[in-house]
Amino acid sequence: MENFVWHNPTKVLFGKDTVPELIKLMKADNIKNVLVLYGGKAIFKNGAYAQVIKALSENKINFTEIGGVKPNPRIDKVREAVSRIKMQAESSPNEKFDAIIPIGGGSVFDSSKAIAAGALYHGDVWDFFDGKAKVESALPIYGVLTVSATSSEVNGIAVVTNPDKEAKTSMSSDLVYPRAAAIDPSFQITLPNKQTVNGGVDIISHVLERVLDGDEGAYIMDDQGYALIRNMMRIIPDLLEEPRNYDLRAEYAWIASIAHSGFLSCGREGRGDFASHKLGHSLSLLFDVPHGASLSVMTPAWARYLYEDNPVPFARLAENVFDIFDGSDEDKAIDAIEALEDFFSSIGAPTTLRELDIDEGEIERIAENASKGGAFGKLSKLEPEDVLEIYKLAY
Amino acid sequence: MENFVWHNPTKVLFGKDTVPELIKLMKADNIKNVLVLYGGKAIFKNGAYAQVIKALSENKINFTEIGGVKPNPRIDKVREAVSRIKMQAESSPNEKFDAIIPIGGGSVFDSSKAIAAGALYHGDVWDFFDGKAKVESALPIYGVLTVSATSSEVNGIAVVTNPDKEAKTSMSSDLVYPRAAAIDPSFQITLPNKQTVNGGVDIISHVLERVLDGDEGAYIMDDQGYALIRNMMRIIPDLLEEPRNYDLRAEYAWIASIAHSGFLSCGREGRGDFASHKLGHSLSLLFDVPHGASLSVMTPAWARYLYEDNPVPFARLAENVFDIFDGSDEDKAIDAIEALEDFFSSIGAPTTLRELDIDEGEIERIAENASKGGAFGKLSKLEPEDVLEIYKLAY
Repeated sequence: MENFVWHNPTKVLFGKDTVPELIKLMKADNIKNVLVLYGGKAIFKNGAYAQVIKALSENKINFTEIGGVKPNPRIDKVREAVSRIKMQAESSPNEKFDAIIPIGGGSVFDSSKAIAAGALYHGDVWDFFDGKAKVESALPIYGVLTVSATSSEVNGIAVVTNPDKEAKTSMSSDLVYPRAAAIDPSFQITLPNKQTVNGGVDIISHVLERVLDGDEGAYIMDDQGYALIRNMMRIIPDLLEEPRNYDLRAEYAWIASIAHSGFLSCGREGRGDFASHKLGHSLSLLFDVPHGASLSVMTPAWARYLYEDNPVPFARLAENVFDIFDGSDEDKAIDAIEALEDFFSSIGAPTTLRELDIDEGEIERIAENASKGGAFGKLSKLEPEDVLEIYKLAY
Repeated sequence: MENFVWHNPTKVLFGKDTVPELIKLMKADNIKNVLVLYGGKAIFKNGAYAQVIKALSENKINFTEIGGVKPNPRIDKVREAVSRIKMQAESSPNEKFDAIIPIGGGSVFDSSKAIAAGALYHGDVWDFFDGKAKVESALPIYGVLTVSATSSEVNGIAVVTNPDKEAKTSMSSDLVYPRAAAIDPSFQITLPNKQTVNGGVDIISHVLERVLDGDEGAYIMDDQGYALIRNMMRIIPDLLEEPRNYDLRAEYAWIASIAHSGFLSCGREGRGDFASHKLGHSLSLLFDVPHGASLSVMTPAWARYLYEDNPVPFARLAENVFDIFDGSDEDKAIDAIEALEDFFSSIGAPTTLRELDIDEGEIERIAENASKGGAFGKLSKLEPEDVLEIYKLAY
C-alpha cells in the first residue's frame, strides 16, 4: 500500500431540511455577504433556491445572485463572477463578499471553486488551470447540492472549459473544498431520467477509474468500490421506474459523494486512472456531449482496447461486480466489459460515438485534442496512436 | 435513509516515515510546548518514541513526558496528566502546554482526549463521562498510532475506566478528534500475535455493531462493512503467519481506522448497536479482560440470544460475508453465527467466559454491572433479564 494523506475537511449535512442548518452554520462562522451562484431554472422549481433565500433573510446575511452557469461550465462565467467580487471589494470594502453559495450540481460547484480562488488572486483565474499559478487562498464555500454526480461537494477539484483554448481542464486545491455542503435528496426527486442516467454513469465511472487502475496494493479500497458499483446497478434502474422515491435518491446521492471524494484513492499509487474521463472530456469540449454520455461511450472502448494486455483488473471486476467466474482472466475480462456495456445500454446510456451523432470524419480531430497534453492514463499510458484507435473502437 | 452529519476533521498521514510530517504540521500550527503521553515500553522498541523526540528537537518544540497509561485506561492517570497541565499553566504561563501527542494505541489516544478536554475545564474530568459536563474546548491532539484497533485516531470518542464507580464509560465530542494522526504501520510489525488477534476482533466488532443493528435504510454502508470484514478475515490469519509483513499491517491499520471512524454510521438511525461492546465492557472492568477478548466472547452469545426474533441482519451477514445462501433466514443466521465463532476460535480468540477463567458464580454480578445504566442495544433493547441470559449463554 502506498503512503497517503486522507483529509476531507468538508462538513456534510445530509438529508431532509438541511439547508437551514447550513445557513445557520454560516451565521455561526460570521458570514455577512454572500454570492449565490446557480445555473438554470431548476432550482426555482425544486425548492432549493427558496429555502436558501429564506434562511439567508432569517439570518440577516446579505446576498447577490449570479445565475446562468452552464453544464460543462465555461471560464467566462467564472471570470464574470470573479470581477463582480473584486469590484465589490474595491467599491464597498465594508460589504465585500466573504463566502460563496453554489446551488446546483457539479458545474455550479466547480465554478464556485474557481471563483473562490480567483477572487483572491491578482491575475487571471485560468492561470490555476494551465498550471501558471497555485491557489494560495480562497473564499469559503457553503454549497447546496441539487444534482448528485461529480462529488464536487466534497472534493477540491474544479473542471472548467475554455473554448478559446479548446481545453476542458481541472484545477485542484485543498483550499477549495467546500467548508460545508447541504445534500438534501428531496431536491433531486424532480430530476429527469436522462440526468439520473448521465449522473449515474459518472458515479460508476469515478469508481471504475480507481478499481481498473491496476494498483494491486489497493484491494481493500477496490472492494469498497465494487460494493458501490453493485449498489448503483440496483439503484439506477429502480430510480428510472420511481424517480420520486426519496430513499433511492438518498442512496444515489450518498454513493455519488463517496465515489469521487478521494476516499477510494487512499493507498493507491496515483489517484486513479482517469483516461476514460480525459477521452470523454474532448467529446464534451468539441461537441458539448454531456459528461456522463461521454463516459458510457469511452469507458467500454478504452477497456476493449487494453484488456488483453491487462486482464487482471477487469477479471476482478467480473468476479466482484458481475458474478462472472468462468474462464481465463481474458475471458472474464471481456465478459465484464460486455456486461458493463449491456448495463449502460439497458438504462439508455449511449455506448458508441455513432449514437452521439458524431461524424466518423471527426475522429482524428477529437484524438488530436485529447492527446494535446501528451500521453495519459495509469493502467496503460496512452500515446496519440492508442488514443486514435480507442476513438475508432468507440465509433 | 436517516439524516446525518458527516464530518471527520482529522488529517491522516498514513504510511512509512509520516512522524516527521506530523511534527512539521505542529510546527506550522505554531505549537511550542507539548505533553507526550504513552503507555508501556513498546514505543521505545518499535521506534515511534525515538522518531517523535528527534522530530520535536529538530523543530524546536519543547516537550514533557507522561508514561504508564494502561490498557483499559484509568481515570486517575487522566487526572494526573490534567493536573500537570493545569499546574504548568499556573506556574509558567509562557510555557503552558498547547498540544498533546499520544504515542500508542487506543488507550493512549482515548486518555489524551480526556486530558485535552479536562485541561481546559474547571471541574473534575470525570464530569464528561457521567454526563455532568459537556466539552467546550480542548487542547489539540497530534497522535502517533502504534497499535491499530479502536479508530481512536480518527474519532471523537474516549472510553475510560473509573474503578471507584465500577464504570467503564465513554465520552464523545467533536472537539477531541485528533487534529492529525500519523499512522505508520512499520511500528506495528513487532506487535505480538495476541495483540493482532485482540485488535482484529475489535475491528470486526466495530463493523458488526453497525451491520447487525437492524437498520434497513443503511444497506449501502452495510455493504461497505461486509467488504471490510471479509478483508479482515483474510488479513488476520495471514498476519499471524507473517507478523512482519508491512503490506498486511497497512491493510489491517487502514481498515481499523475506517471501521469506527463514524463512516459506517452514516444514514443509520442511531450510531450502531453496541450492545456487545457494552456487555464486554463489564468483563474488562471487573476482570481486566482485554477489550478484543471480551468481544469475541460476548458477540456470539448476544447473537445467539436474539437471532431467532431478528434473523434478517444475521442472514444478510451469512450471504455477504460467509457465502451461506441455503435455507431459511433463521438457518442462515445460525450458520453465520457459528461461522463467526469458528473464525474467532481459528485465530485463537476466546469465545466463552470459561476460557477467560471467569467463575460461573460471578455471572450475576457481571450482569448487574452491565445493566446498571438501564436497558441498552438497538437491534433489541436488552433488559436486565436478557443481559443475564446472554452472560449465561456466554459461559
